[in-house]
Amino acid sequence: MKETITSSANPAIKALRKLQEKKGRQESGCFYVEGLKLVGDALEKGADICQIIYSSDLLVSDFGRKIPQLAEKRRIETLNVTPDVFNSFSMKAGPQGAAAVVRQHWLALDDSGAEHGLWLALENVQDPGNLGSALRSLDGAGGSGLILLDDATDAYHPTAVRASMGSIFTQKLVKTDTGALADWKKRRGARIIGTWCGEAKAYRSYNYPEDMILLMGSEQKGLQPQHLALCDELVHIPMRGYVDSLNLACAASVVLFEIFDQREKNKEK
Amino acid sequence: MKETITSSANPAIKALRKLQEKKGRQESGCFYVEGLKLVGDALEKGADICQIIYSSDLLVSDFGRKIPQLAEKRRIETLNVTPDVFNSFSMKAGPQGAAAVVRQHWLALDDSGAEHGLWLALENVQDPGNLGSALRSLDGAGGSGLILLDDATDAYHPTAVRASMGSIFTQKLVKTDTGALADWKKRRGARIIGTWCGEAKAYRSYNYPEDMILLMGSEQKGLQPQHLALCDELVHIPMRGYVDSLNLACAASVVLFEIFDQREKNKEK
Repeated sequence: MKETITSSANPAIKALRKLQEKKGRQESGCFYVEGLKLVGDALEKGADICQIIYSSDLLVSDFGRKIPQLAEKRRIETLNVTPDVFNSFSMKAGPQGAAAVVRQHWLALDDSGAEHGLWLALENVQDPGNLGSALRSLDGAGGSGLILLDDATDAYHPTAVRASMGSIFTQKLVKTDTGALADWKKRRGARIIGTWCGEAKAYRSYNYPEDMILLMGSEQKGLQPQHLALCDELVHIPMRGYVDSLNLACAASVVLFEIFDQREKNKEK
Repeated sequence: MKETITSSANPAIKALRKLQEKKGRQESGCFYVEGLKLVGDALEKGADICQIIYSSDLLVSDFGRKIPQLAEKRRIETLNVTPDVFNSFSMKAGPQGAAAVVRQHWLALDDSGAEHGLWLALENVQDPGNLGSALRSLDGAGGSGLILLDDATDAYHPTAVRASMGSIFTQKLVKTDTGALADWKKRRGARIIGTWCGEAKAYRSYNYPEDMILLMGSEQKGLQPQHLALCDELVHIPMRGYVDSLNLACAASVVLFEIFDQREKNKEK
């Protein structure tokens, strides 16, 4: 019978809580995943899971109860904890009793294959919820991966992971800077299409290339001159009303699903 | 010379903090607005502002410095507070020194005019950030107003207000329940188009009527049977990849901007 951790001061539990902070994720190279859906996604998509932490008293659903066995079958270390201990690190209002420590998976630009397929690049994105929601839309639109430029927030922030709805395990991730992207683009001949509130083509009147990176600026400032210089084309979303821009993840979704629609129509031809 | 409030225990400051909670907003019928852009939006759009609270030491921009005069010109009560007092209620990381108490403005369904124009109805939406981002997209897509059904989160939650980027002052707002909406729809002959992950038309293959309400379900559960029964048509967003749905505000944006595009094309005809 597996021993149950009863103290929230246990070193393994302390390490878990550290993953909820940027510093802890940077030092360990791991990230924190919580909830039946996300832990299930991690198992299903073959994520590099270091540890699964569960509280058998909280695992009430059929799927929940299977998680410890699924983990053991894959020789993943498991920890059973009391509901009190689980609550001590849980980030959910109603904890479902399943969490995981998963190894981060970053690709170098040169190994990413970002010159093929549909990619999204976010420059200096600040809100992890926006990052996760954009990643989810990218996945839904048949995208391949996400490039984070410069001082972007962490794709493995718990809020980004939760908002990604599992696409954090399926989309490729690259972290780089503008200079390296410019150099790589020159060498690989990649096409970059930027979104821009100023002088630009209407996003529905442009024929998007098969292989491309959609580049978007930060929530506050949009694309900067050095990023605009990287773009082969600029598109904007025409709009009415009082606002002159959309939430970053919403804008990404609108453009990504136009690209998706064009691709589907091209397939039918 | 106007007296400066130096204590965060001042009754006016206590009242301000209460507006950050649902109960305080319900009791007062007011809401809390913070930041130069949003306070400026409230002034510009003629919102029913009860009070403007500023800290002259924090108002460093030209526009910021004008706010107290603009308020006095409109005979709005103003309070000058010390930076410490401002920080005691501020919800921003770097407070800009301007906040306002604004009266909530709800319309009854019968007085809303929701049978004309483009409206969005959200059933049981949980996340105020989603609500605000959806409202912003609705405004950008030329919409008229938002209907909140049943146990939806508060449109005047500070996070919703901030995410709306000023559209909280331009879009009409209605709060009602499913029964009242069904009854109103029958009387007024309104058209309701629902988004639905199951059997439904692809959102780009449907011709949206000129006057319509786009109805969307909650983040967790989507539309419920009683809401589906209200819909004249159901549409879905075809997608690929691992995820089978989008963030609520992202999904709303994708469909709203298809509707917007159809309207623009119809105008050109």
